[in-house]
Amino acid sequence: MIQGIGASTGVAIGRAFVLPSWEWDVPDRRMENIDLTKEFDRLYEGIRTSKNEIEIIKNEIKEMVGSEESGIFDAHIAILEDPVFMSEIQGIIERQYKAAEVAVKEAIDHFVTMFDLLDDEYMKERALDIKDVGNRLLKHLLGTPDITLPADTQPYILVAKELSPSQLVHLNPSNVLGMVTMLGGKTSHSAIMARALGIPLVSGLENKLTVPIQTGDLLIVDGDEGCLFLDPDERLVNKYSQLAERLRKRKEQLQQLASVAAVTIDGVQLRLAGNISSIKDCEIALKHGAEGVGLFRTEFLYMNRSTFPTEDEQFDVYRQVAEKSGNHAVVIRTLDIGGDKELEYFSIPEEENPVLGYRGIRISLDCPELFKTQLTAILRASAYGRMKILFPMISSVEEVIEAKQILREAMHELDLKGITYDAEIPVGIMIEVPAAAAIADLLAEEVDFFSIGTNDLVQYVLAVDRMNEQIAEMYHPYHPAILRMLRTTVRAAHAAGITVSVCGEMAGDERSVPLWLYLGIHDLSMSPQSLLRVKHKILGSKATEGKAVGEQCYKLRTSAEIEALLEQNSMSEVLRSEEEQRCPLN
Amino acid sequence: MIQGIGASTGVAIGRAFVLPSWEWDVPDRRMENIDLTKEFDRLYEGIRTSKNEIEIIKNEIKEMVGSEESGIFDAHIAILEDPVFMSEIQGIIERQYKAAEVAVKEAIDHFVTMFDLLDDEYMKERALDIKDVGNRLLKHLLGTPDITLPADTQPYILVAKELSPSQLVHLNPSNVLGMVTMLGGKTSHSAIMARALGIPLVSGLENKLTVPIQTGDLLIVDGDEGCLFLDPDERLVNKYSQLAERLRKRKEQLQQLASVAAVTIDGVQLRLAGNISSIKDCEIALKHGAEGVGLFRTEFLYMNRSTFPTEDEQFDVYRQVAEKSGNHAVVIRTLDIGGDKELEYFSIPEEENPVLGYRGIRISLDCPELFKTQLTAILRASAYGRMKILFPMISSVEEVIEAKQILREAMHELDLKGITYDAEIPVGIMIEVPAAAAIADLLAEEVDFFSIGTNDLVQYVLAVDRMNEQIAEMYHPYHPAILRMLRTTVRAAHAAGITVSVCGEMAGDERSVPLWLYLGIHDLSMSPQSLLRVKHKILGSKATEGKAVGEQCYKLRTSAEIEALLEQNSMSEVLRSEEEQRCPLN
Repeated sequence: MIQGIGASTGVAIGRAFVLPSWEWDVPDRRMENIDLTKEFDRLYEGIRTSKNEIEIIKNEIKEMVGSEESGIFDAHIAILEDPVFMSEIQGIIERQYKAAEVAVKEAIDHFVTMFDLLDDEYMKERALDIKDVGNRLLKHLLGTPDITLPADTQPYILVAKELSPSQLVHLNPSNVLGMVTMLGGKTSHSAIMARALGIPLVSGLENKLTVPIQTGDLLIVDGDEGCLFLDPDERLVNKYSQLAERLRKRKEQLQQLASVAAVTIDGVQLRLAGNISSIKDCEIALKHGAEGVGLFRTEFLYMNRSTFPTEDEQFDVYRQVAEKSGNHAVVIRTLDIGGDKELEYFSIPEEENPVLGYRGIRISLDCPELFKTQLTAILRASAYGRMKILFPMISSVEEVIEAKQILREAMHELDLKGITYDAEIPVGIMIEVPAAAAIADLLAEEVDFFSIGTNDLVQYVLAVDRMNEQIAEMYHPYHPAILRMLRTTVRAAHAAGITVSVCGEMAGDERSVPLWLYLGIHDLSMSPQSLLRVKHKILGSKATEGKAVGEQCYKLRTSAEIEALLEQNSMSEVLRSEEEQRCPLN
Repeated sequence: MIQGIGASTGVAIGRAFVLPSWEWDVPDRRMENIDLTKEFDRLYEGIRTSKNEIEIIKNEIKEMVGSEESGIFDAHIAILEDPVFMSEIQGIIERQYKAAEVAVKEAIDHFVTMFDLLDDEYMKERALDIKDVGNRLLKHLLGTPDITLPADTQPYILVAKELSPSQLVHLNPSNVLGMVTMLGGKTSHSAIMARALGIPLVSGLENKLTVPIQTGDLLIVDGDEGCLFLDPDERLVNKYSQLAERLRKRKEQLQQLASVAAVTIDGVQLRLAGNISSIKDCEIALKHGAEGVGLFRTEFLYMNRSTFPTEDEQFDVYRQVAEKSGNHAVVIRTLDIGGDKELEYFSIPEEENPVLGYRGIRISLDCPELFKTQLTAILRASAYGRMKILFPMISSVEEVIEAKQILREAMHELDLKGITYDAEIPVGIMIEVPAAAAIADLLAEEVDFFSIGTNDLVQYVLAVDRMNEQIAEMYHPYHPAILRMLRTTVRAAHAAGITVSVCGEMAGDERSVPLWLYLGIHDLSMSPQSLLRVKHKILGSKATEGKAVGEQCYKLRTSAEIEALLEQNSMSEVLRSEEEQRCPLN
């Protein structure tokens, strides 16, 4: 058994296919009689072909797993449009009389070395992106074919030094049982895609293998425990086969809960909605039994393109989501760019701390025409379903008043045009900035509902950037300060008679159910993948017991104690026995 | 009258001295018979001389205005040690056969253009630093003398396109009445130094002058209103002379308050201590009547050097501060690097959001030996005065327990060596992370005092980076959420019977006095420059009235309303009439 990092959950048993690592053989020499026009034409043609190819891949991924993951490829297109990168390549051709592929190779090497030198995780990741794009461009310039994968009839476990998103996209996912990489961890682009595709992945095995894996070796990949078994014996294969079968059955059973209401044993009902970014996501959420959309992240409509989406384009998407959701509500969050989300065509000055910067409602209020276009599209769609409007990053009463004023203007303009919309459309705000939680009572007077965004709230309250690996273990959603802020918010909402829901990742963690019962939160919105797991937990819970556990948590002094109590509570008898069977080594 | 930006307060009347702008004349050509060894020797010699010069300047500045401002020059030394910058210069000499000064000039131009291209405020400032350092290096390579300033007997107003810290340092500050620059704003390095030196500065006048200023022109510089008068008439000169005289008198009167206790008219006493970064700062604070040191920012001991300070080096500084402060307490904050403060010799991986990253106590607990060295030095110094220990960036009970455990280890080691220290040394924490305010009651059980760091608290609670110009107007210390968090913290401290002080910039804003009276905060620590102003306000206040104003503030819903009320309250009859006289144009 070799211990690595479990980067995507699930279990796979099968034969290895080892992806050969590849270095382009590009002779570095000047050309005596270079035809500059020809080399530039070859370069531009290669860029065009690469861009088209990336666009196609992006759309495939979007179709397969939703728009959030497909955004990876926008970074790739951006590199091919980057003036600095391009002028470097052109300069080498023009001044050093080198062929296009040599220039591309040198430019890649130059930037990758430079970025690696900076000793910065973000830049290292950008270096990987440049390598990936550069290799694609080289492929078109040199005409080398893609690496041949095993025939489609033979499922296999893919083994590689590292996997780029470009490589992953060429796979037929139904044929890849599992994946193993030497480099990478939980947050790499490949890990994100593996999770979205539901393929188990164990990463970070470099320097841990005593013998290299060969194509044809029998492997067991355990993405939950993050371990790999090389040439396992029959007993282990049997145990894992049984486990895989149990997991498959569990998944089937969960799927049967899709149409069941989320009610505790003693009759307390919760409403579970989905967090979505696209129409496709909405379909997936509904398939997993979502009672509507609790958070539509509209920024993804603004990404993957070169201009702002028009009112009509937005209206079309919002209307489709509203119609698909039928009688269920659809909460549309207005544009939340900035922080870690950028648009190519809307430049935000480089910020030292973007998460504490120009983002969300701050941008919308600063660009009222942009904001009004979106509000108008939402209002028009409100004639086709139960829409609600949600403002992100609110930190003061003034911002809410200003945002509502712009909404009224949008309504007024529709009135003048005689276009119908829901004049009573509920207006809510995200509670994610600590200030908003602290003045929840004042904000409650201004709005119809709260949606608590625990991801950002936790990072601000604890002053811990959750993407920063250096302090990753300090990111504690179950911190007593967070529970207190949640309670302040819920109490303010209840006192004002407005609804309050939770839409951060805590909502999708089934261990939190006792907290929601104790705090009096009955609306949750989560990633479609979490819906059935959380519902299963609710169906097996007694509200009275859950509340007691929640109350106990609330009195504890440290995150570690709270987490331990929730963990213990989640280990019901049934689950515990399953857990014992879970470990095949016993 | 020309309106610019008031970058340093005060008023000056005098004759202009216009600093000629300067471009190096470096012919760009290859040398046929270059002696590479000679050029490299010249380059290295130039770098050595430049570095020594910068070191001297740094120490002068440190002596003159304290260590915080002298840190500017560390950035300059770092450039001369930067491998990328140096290899660029060496490459040009070696491969293009150019003289050292030509290579330096080209490398500067290259980096400045590159940084400017990035369209990033931070990078633009780094470009200015590179220019400044590069010009110094060129000066040593080309032997061009410094620009001659007017004779020392003739005070003048300095006029320049832009001023670099290197230029400012050559001035005799007692000879410079005021300064005027075309470029720059409130946050430039020059503005920081002008404020530290107490020289009025008006910046940002580019494209605003219809005729250029000539050496010898009569000028009035009003750094408070940010305006410049060119060739003013006699009436205006008289008015401004009177104003300058009144400001001078006011300063004198304030200085007389240094030895007076800070007691309100109705007998409520506050304690005003100083925020310091060095022994020099401590002296300045005591001169301004500080009742001890409320915040010793020890990170400045770690800056401006190439290795960690030893236990003895630290002990020496702490002991001196303790002795100088006599019977007054000295609160020493343990190392608070990270965020925006870096050490050359302790590399922190590049972070996307450093303010939410690896910093303060997080680093200390991660490097316990480093931490213990500092704690030991503080303990040893505690035998020489009234020391208190303050931990920064606390966000959980666990961190406090862990930090105190390391403190106990340090005590135990001193016991074994038989070295005396204050075994009852009070231990406190900064309340600056929102989580700490939210669980202040739990934290109060673990410590002897709280010190509220409003600067960071405000930025986390509002999710507004105060250094980010794009959202600067959103940084509101007087936000209702902040007042609530302050009250939560104070109540928890009082309930546990521990002291609580405020050491952020709010403490140095005299408008806050009613809030402190209302909240029950009697300990403030502030920049030495603010001590007398705040004391003057306290001496003129009635605690009963102040409390009522503070309570009114607490009930308001928006920052704008709170600030208006505090502003109105600060405008007592006396001050208001002074304000009317203040504007010489009426």
